[in-house]
Amino acid sequence: MTLQFLGTSSGQPTLERNLSCIALVREGAIYLLDCGEAAQIQFRRAGLRFGRVAGFLITHMHGDHVTVLPGMLMSLQMAGRTEPLLIAGPPGIREFVVETSRLIATGFGFPIDFVESAAAATVLDTPDLVVETAPLEHRVPAMGYRIVERDFPGRFDVEAARALGVAEGPDFGRLQRGESVVAADGTVVTSEQIVGVPRRGKVVAYCTDTRPCDGAVALARDADVLVHECTFLGDREDDAELSGHSTAAQAASVALRAGVRRLIITHFSPRYSDVAPLLAEARTVFPATEAAEELAEYEV
Amino acid sequence: MTLQFLGTSSGQPTLERNLSCIALVREGAIYLLDCGEAAQIQFRRAGLRFGRVAGFLITHMHGDHVTVLPGMLMSLQMAGRTEPLLIAGPPGIREFVVETSRLIATGFGFPIDFVESAAAATVLDTPDLVVETAPLEHRVPAMGYRIVERDFPGRFDVEAARALGVAEGPDFGRLQRGESVVAADGTVVTSEQIVGVPRRGKVVAYCTDTRPCDGAVALARDADVLVHECTFLGDREDDAELSGHSTAAQAASVALRAGVRRLIITHFSPRYSDVAPLLAEARTVFPATEAAEELAEYEV
Repeated sequence: MTLQFLGTSSGQPTLERNLSCIALVREGAIYLLDCGEAAQIQFRRAGLRFGRVAGFLITHMHGDHVTVLPGMLMSLQMAGRTEPLLIAGPPGIREFVVETSRLIATGFGFPIDFVESAAAATVLDTPDLVVETAPLEHRVPAMGYRIVERDFPGRFDVEAARALGVAEGPDFGRLQRGESVVAADGTVVTSEQIVGVPRRGKVVAYCTDTRPCDGAVALARDADVLVHECTFLGDREDDAELSGHSTAAQAASVALRAGVRRLIITHFSPRYSDVAPLLAEARTVFPATEAAEELAEYEV
Repeated sequence: MTLQFLGTSSGQPTLERNLSCIALVREGAIYLLDCGEAAQIQFRRAGLRFGRVAGFLITHMHGDHVTVLPGMLMSLQMAGRTEPLLIAGPPGIREFVVETSRLIATGFGFPIDFVESAAAATVLDTPDLVVETAPLEHRVPAMGYRIVERDFPGRFDVEAARALGVAEGPDFGRLQRGESVVAADGTVVTSEQIVGVPRRGKVVAYCTDTRPCDGAVALARDADVLVHECTFLGDREDDAELSGHSTAAQAASVALRAGVRRLIITHFSPRYSDVAPLLAEARTVFPATEAAEELAEYEV
């Protein structure tokens, strides 16, 4: 999985930063986390393809996170999409898409699977990926996401199985599923002899817009990467509290409590043309922190 | 007056071109003609100030012309606006703004004067400026605009008035209004002796999205600058007809019929990464044509 930041500013775009949108790319499928202004243009700049969009995960219904969603859907339409599209978000996301489409006289030739949730829920469950959502703490209902890649099965050593006298066929399946089998010479062959250790799937958590909260910690528990909002420096903790946002140190404290491997901070107030002080503040609490850069790609 | 193009692409943004938006700046006041994706960011790149926005003139309710209007209003709000704001457009513009604001839980601390019109009408009438609108021919109701600067009064020659014995006071006003007065020595002094020739106000017409049509010609009659959409090259005249757009030659023919001084073509299909052929085609019909460049400023 990779994360590519298409926009990293909060509230208003700046000359250097666009509004919230992240492309999570896994095996060619693209999930867009929020869809703020200029997401379409940044999507093109990132070299991504509209035909690969699998779904949108929207955190909350503020304009800086959703205004370009209708434009994105227009581009999917122009790309000739017919497959269903997932749009997950808080209550209101469906009405926003339906109403704006009506108001801009635009229809779509593909079905949209809306998954609205104001409480903890599973919004996607496929053989590859599970996406869970849970409420955060903002001025309006805001939902965080936990994107969990399923574990990859261990490598099946065909040569070893043959050498131990296991016949190709149903016994291979049994070994793959962790069962033991009896070889041609009557000896027992265990799964561990043939199948490698499963590779753990990666976990990404996305928490914005929010005050530091238990919901964010739970979503981020043991994640490989937590992307957490970081609107202010610590000297504006009161502003953060009032506006439902987090300071750099607060974002880092969520990462620390959740035991994540890496923290990427984003959603910087336009007041900071240089985010180095935010990064420095976060690192005092959680050293494995990076500050999201526009169009930068992060391997999970 | 100056025109600065914040976006010049039709339908979808490209790596080089954003979606429709033009800043018309007159005496510091900014009128935004359409409000497509990335208008906010381009607005900043152009060095414009949110506090100077006087109004929006929206042509039609397609996504590539309106999606960023709510974001723009958010920026006006954040800039502390309290003065009324003009938003003119076709029927539906009011509902779009009201509904999207509701759906993104955003309110504005300034009144919005909506002027919806599906027929010829005057949408703004101030001592400086008159803005007229009239229907064009598109797939949905689309309105063109004619922005007319009122004539500037001729220069009042104070020295000449004094030399001819006119006393400062009410007689100065009479001369300014074109009347004659009697000087101290009993001679008649005419307005023409004291007041220069009025300077003609400039006229800008904006016609998009549309097939070539009489409505566009009437709006552009004798204009100093006509900005006309130019979605396709002439070899796609059928596509233009079907989709309610114009070819380069058709845009130029509107300019020719209207007797404008200059034509600026814009709203180029994303299929043209180089617009030179569109410009060349237009110039065969109307030589005084320019192709709009992103962020370029055109003095009217």
